[in-house]
Amino acid sequence: MDDFQGGSLRVAVIGVGLMGGSLGLAAREHAGATTVCGYGRNRDNLELALARGAITTIADSVESAAAGADLIFVATPVRLVLDHVRRALQAAPSHAVVTDVGSTKGSLMSGLTDEEQRRCIGGHPLCGSEAAGVANARVGLYEGATYFLTPGTHVDPAAFQLLHSFVSKIGARPVAIDPEQHDRLMALMSHLPHVLANVLMTQAGRSSGPRDALLAAGPSFRDLTRVAGSNRRVWTDIFLENRAALLAELEDFQVGLRRMTEALATSDADALGEAIAQAAEDRGRMLTASTLAPGELFRLVVKIPDRPGVIREITVALGDANINIEDIALHHMSAELGGALTVYVGGENVCRQAADLLEGLDYEVITGRAVE
Amino acid sequence: MDDFQGGSLRVAVIGVGLMGGSLGLAAREHAGATTVCGYGRNRDNLELALARGAITTIADSVESAAAGADLIFVATPVRLVLDHVRRALQAAPSHAVVTDVGSTKGSLMSGLTDEEQRRCIGGHPLCGSEAAGVANARVGLYEGATYFLTPGTHVDPAAFQLLHSFVSKIGARPVAIDPEQHDRLMALMSHLPHVLANVLMTQAGRSSGPRDALLAAGPSFRDLTRVAGSNRRVWTDIFLENRAALLAELEDFQVGLRRMTEALATSDADALGEAIAQAAEDRGRMLTASTLAPGELFRLVVKIPDRPGVIREITVALGDANINIEDIALHHMSAELGGALTVYVGGENVCRQAADLLEGLDYEVITGRAVE
Repeated sequence: MDDFQGGSLRVAVIGVGLMGGSLGLAAREHAGATTVCGYGRNRDNLELALARGAITTIADSVESAAAGADLIFVATPVRLVLDHVRRALQAAPSHAVVTDVGSTKGSLMSGLTDEEQRRCIGGHPLCGSEAAGVANARVGLYEGATYFLTPGTHVDPAAFQLLHSFVSKIGARPVAIDPEQHDRLMALMSHLPHVLANVLMTQAGRSSGPRDALLAAGPSFRDLTRVAGSNRRVWTDIFLENRAALLAELEDFQVGLRRMTEALATSDADALGEAIAQAAEDRGRMLTASTLAPGELFRLVVKIPDRPGVIREITVALGDANINIEDIALHHMSAELGGALTVYVGGENVCRQAADLLEGLDYEVITGRAVE
Repeated sequence: MDDFQGGSLRVAVIGVGLMGGSLGLAAREHAGATTVCGYGRNRDNLELALARGAITTIADSVESAAAGADLIFVATPVRLVLDHVRRALQAAPSHAVVTDVGSTKGSLMSGLTDEEQRRCIGGHPLCGSEAAGVANARVGLYEGATYFLTPGTHVDPAAFQLLHSFVSKIGARPVAIDPEQHDRLMALMSHLPHVLANVLMTQAGRSSGPRDALLAAGPSFRDLTRVAGSNRRVWTDIFLENRAALLAELEDFQVGLRRMTEALATSDADALGEAIAQAAEDRGRMLTASTLAPGELFRLVVKIPDRPGVIREITVALGDANINIEDIALHHMSAELGGALTVYVGGENVCRQAADLLEGLDYEVITGRAVE
């Protein structure tokens, strides 16, 4: 394949804040990066990143940062990402992989040409902190975080493998997902909660009783408003970027709220009780799911043809089935014979489930323990 | 006054769960209770309470528990409170004080006759735990918690003083409040958040995407749904008891949500940004308010006439002004001369503010350091 696979990895980070800076630190510490070239608009910030070891050199443009890199992270605000990704792809070596860390993925992926999709894979790590900026960057930021990847139909398998491997090395859990589905999921699981928190916070803030309602904030109110007022610029961008999906979830929420209001207005104790019971069941499922211990490592060797869409189809199908890909490897690729993709998963049952799923998609699969 | 003031205090607890059991433990440890007599429907539960030291004797009825007590806590579910309070008042000695720990106060207070209001004061400590039952009772449950008290117009000052003093002794912060205002405040700060959490949780739980949305729950979703699915029976009761106030807050929330939805639908970045900024300001105010260090103790000696409504007027006026009463004492009461109420507050400025407020209500006030 390409020269970076044998040894050193050259990383570039466009936009060196909390996310980009932490990527630089983790790349050097855990992923064998020999250089991390940083670019951003603020020179003082880049000097700080250099002093902290988050980057090893400063570039004076997106293009010059990308020119010498094998793996390029665009960690700028969501609305700038497509432009920066394009410029990085143009300037980067032909083998280089470009990705981002933005909270929405649909407009990025649909904005790329088939050719650009070969080496650009959207990314979204589910982590962050209230403390922004490279000053708060830390090597462990990504540890244990779900890290969504959105490979396009035309993705180069080697590019996907490189990024997947990098994400695993920095301690995150890569999960492939369709970009539109990613945005709908985030609208529900992240953007809607932020809207609710903001509305509740301001409702209490302007409440007109004789005493300040905020002084009566107990644990439940504090939980519900912990993310209220998060970074105005970042969140305005996210809300607008994911407007359609968020509007759909807001509509859905209003339906649910009207249902509860109706039950209350008619003093329907059964309906209220059943809503609470359903929430209890759902919450129990959430807590159980997130505490499942990973099983012993198994592998699936999947025979794959050399045609577009294969990597995306396999990884997204496994992701959709909630099967976590612990590691991925690609062997013997040739245009005529195709090749073999090895996928590692946790637990024998999960391995069996994954094999059934891929066989259902007409792939030939061999399974076994990862270490025999 | 009465014999319990000089020495031992006899407490009764009707309904010995987490709240009642913790009251019993704290009464014995911190408030000089020599006996805690418990009554509840479940005999095994009472035996457990006895074994844990939360009560010292078991009664076989509300009436027999109340008969030998100076201070009676009704800690049963909200819809049973009024009946239990009434029965306790009837059976208790003429000096005894009855209170409850329910989450709503309006229907209790409006259900009491003037005569019953003399010795019954509603109470609502802002504490609790996901772990219910006397098995989880602990002596420190009330420490640091705001503890709302709703004295009626006809409250006996000595009864209020006894309860206020008890609440302080177990480590909570007593705050007097009008019962209707209490219920509106709780509708906004506690009951609305619970409804929102339940609606959000079930929306995510039944989401119909190809993968289970709950597996993508990040920190914000977890914060917003921490109280989802809380005790079905208890919360159905609370929602219904506080129906009118909660419906008003739900209506208000829907207005706020429509405003955000409209801003999003029209891609109004300024409106979205301003909503976030307002939430940030409100949240900052909440965090600042709750971390203010209490000041040095000052006292106000207030000359009061012997007529109904005085205690309620003074304590609720101070509560409405967010002035925390650290301690309260009553001297020289007589029907002809009235008496003096000493109120302790934290900080010289707060003391000045309290004096201005009470002078504005035509009380004669003398202020000074608590310990000269």
